[in-house]
Amino acid sequence: MRSGKSVKVALLGCGTVGTEVVRLLRTQAADLTARVGAPLELVGVAVRRLDRHRRAGVVPSELLTDDAMGLVERDDVDVVVEVVGGIEPARTWLTTALKSGKSVVTANKALLAEDGATLHEAAAEGNADLFYEASVAGAIPLLRPLRESLHGDRITRVIGIVNGTTNYILSRMHATGAGFTEALEEATALGYAEADPTADIEGFDAAAKAAILASLAFHTRVTVADVYREGITEVSAADVASAEAMGCVVKLLCVAERHTDPDEPESVSVRVHPAMIPRTHPLAGVGEAFNAVFVEAEAAGRLMFYGPGAGGAPTASAVLGDLVAVARNRLAGARAASESNYAALRIRPMGEVRTRYHISLDVDDRAGVLATVAHVFADHGVSIQAVRQEGRGEDALLVIVTHQATDAALRATVQALAELDTVRQVAGVMRVEGEQ
Amino acid sequence: MRSGKSVKVALLGCGTVGTEVVRLLRTQAADLTARVGAPLELVGVAVRRLDRHRRAGVVPSELLTDDAMGLVERDDVDVVVEVVGGIEPARTWLTTALKSGKSVVTANKALLAEDGATLHEAAAEGNADLFYEASVAGAIPLLRPLRESLHGDRITRVIGIVNGTTNYILSRMHATGAGFTEALEEATALGYAEADPTADIEGFDAAAKAAILASLAFHTRVTVADVYREGITEVSAADVASAEAMGCVVKLLCVAERHTDPDEPESVSVRVHPAMIPRTHPLAGVGEAFNAVFVEAEAAGRLMFYGPGAGGAPTASAVLGDLVAVARNRLAGARAASESNYAALRIRPMGEVRTRYHISLDVDDRAGVLATVAHVFADHGVSIQAVRQEGRGEDALLVIVTHQATDAALRATVQALAELDTVRQVAGVMRVEGEQ
Repeated sequence: MRSGKSVKVALLGCGTVGTEVVRLLRTQAADLTARVGAPLELVGVAVRRLDRHRRAGVVPSELLTDDAMGLVERDDVDVVVEVVGGIEPARTWLTTALKSGKSVVTANKALLAEDGATLHEAAAEGNADLFYEASVAGAIPLLRPLRESLHGDRITRVIGIVNGTTNYILSRMHATGAGFTEALEEATALGYAEADPTADIEGFDAAAKAAILASLAFHTRVTVADVYREGITEVSAADVASAEAMGCVVKLLCVAERHTDPDEPESVSVRVHPAMIPRTHPLAGVGEAFNAVFVEAEAAGRLMFYGPGAGGAPTASAVLGDLVAVARNRLAGARAASESNYAALRIRPMGEVRTRYHISLDVDDRAGVLATVAHVFADHGVSIQAVRQEGRGEDALLVIVTHQATDAALRATVQALAELDTVRQVAGVMRVEGEQ
Repeated sequence: MRSGKSVKVALLGCGTVGTEVVRLLRTQAADLTARVGAPLELVGVAVRRLDRHRRAGVVPSELLTDDAMGLVERDDVDVVVEVVGGIEPARTWLTTALKSGKSVVTANKALLAEDGATLHEAAAEGNADLFYEASVAGAIPLLRPLRESLHGDRITRVIGIVNGTTNYILSRMHATGAGFTEALEEATALGYAEADPTADIEGFDAAAKAAILASLAFHTRVTVADVYREGITEVSAADVASAEAMGCVVKLLCVAERHTDPDEPESVSVRVHPAMIPRTHPLAGVGEAFNAVFVEAEAAGRLMFYGPGAGGAPTASAVLGDLVAVARNRLAGARAASESNYAALRIRPMGEVRTRYHISLDVDDRAGVLATVAHVFADHGVSIQAVRQEGRGEDALLVIVTHQATDAALRATVQALAELDTVRQVAGVMRVEGEQ
């Protein structure tokens, strides 16, 4: 900590979240000073378009700069807060800051999930703090509990809803019976989906968060490339209706699991995909754009964390929480626990992960069809939990829910079913999660 | 940190929680060592009855002692874990440990709520860590988020279910229509209630937890003496039926609020009492012996934390989480953020707190009664939100739900109603929480 009395903060980015950070630093100044033990002083804000921010007037003009790297390298900066996002130039800024001993608070899930190792190594090199609570599930305190509260326990599973946009869309599909496209249009009109919603609806955003959660939960490095990912664009109104018929709701889930088999080394799997979960599961009640994460640990049991997963103010709350922590550490000359990745567990590929499938088939409505279909399941070693058949004249809808089997076996089963003469169409395939 | 390579742990108490702590220290040893950076070594376990524990065989005999104070004072002890409970001798042990620079991890809610100041002062004197996640809501990571994650935000309200025994009893009363006594008997038979259930059913346990939560949430000192407290022994089957009739459930709530009125200094109120909350409130779905706490913060919005609130393993998980944190701090020569009580807010007495009442009256069934009753409310400045009347021959049941008013005004209203000739009996009074 340098000789000045305040902790000097550089802010990179001043969009929705950055603006809220600036506002909270100003309106909560007295409380923040008391909690840190010294004032948090905003010494510079780097933005892309100076003229626009000068006009907006949120940040005093003399603090604005379009030279982010210059700001990061300033000798008097103690902490760098980054709310720009994306891989570059954020990675260069943050590694520069960390290596020179500046603490970093970031909301950048994409960077952490793609190349967290580089950031953690830079933090270790500079003996600096790297905090990123805002990168997952907005204001919900989730990373700190995983990183600290539960580190005396053994986490076995993390299952959550970590993308508000897709949760809003799926909730609307259930409420109105609308198809995906229609529900997306509504979400866009109401501001729940961005103009380009790809990162949300294709599951990229959730996959990045899943990688971050899994790394912390299992003390091992997981990158976004390790995460199996399916978005919700293929979820149909028929899938939603089918889920309701069996007392379920469709959610885009992230699931991170520890696998402990007696005859092989421990491994983890991490996946993001739509799934049916029973209405009685606590995650089923998480509506609109809210987020919630279930954590299962050997001693603690099942814990749930719930709250707003996005938005300027909630995300800024998480940033400020981290900022107070790193500022206190600087004043104390201390550093928080660094990355814990000692476990170095194998990533289990999706084909080896055991899940359950819900399969809807359009079949000829005649004798022997069910027997033929059942044979295909048996041939692949997949056990059937429930069958429902609805005659519709010449054809019938056959709905099958399986017991757990490897994803590879289930995929091969679906493939083989599609090739049957009596199967007109595989109308829908979706995984089923929650207690069997 | 002394020269030895391990972090040396003394355990005070070896009941349900202590036994689980010993078990986890053994079974998770490799993981704990990796996370701490050195082994956690159990160097002594203080118990009251040596012979019983020698026979039980959970703890190696050479570690057992009945001299807790001697164990606390041993030079080679780094961390003292206390799971005995009660005010004395726990306070003497822990202040001795803290003043001599030993870190303390405790689950002792009674001591923290009655005289936390003494412990915090001893921790400051000895420059030692004082952690107590296990004191509230078992394994649910709640104190650390309040103490750290949200300290960049401004918490306005904490509302929670923090006692599993009473939540189990009230859940059963709803499920079966049973009265309090019958439901308590069932809870006792199933092990959800202790042989002497006073601390739970009279709200003392919840009041202690409420004091701890409020202190952390509002950065001010709140002791159990500051907490308004009512237990659930007066809750009747009729109250439960009445709650259901208006779409509510009865829960024993702890409510801690920050009061910001323009014309007076900021204050806080903390209370524990049964209340009706709407079925749509997320706390309404918290069943059996589970705990859940809602935290409302200005920027973060509404967050919920949910999980098992008690039990040996969950509580031990919280103890171990704290133990890893303080052990890491010792190795780093650091100390966590100490008590933050700068706000020094006034405690608002219950009479000044604004709540809503649900009042059931047995009245004469004749003209003019409602007018007379309504007059009493008006005279006390209490506004009525809803009225429901059920004729039953000569008398009638009159149910009134009020808008918000001060608790003093509501009490005075009930008092005046009881004195009316036309009111045969005030059959039930319960507060109503949740959105109006």
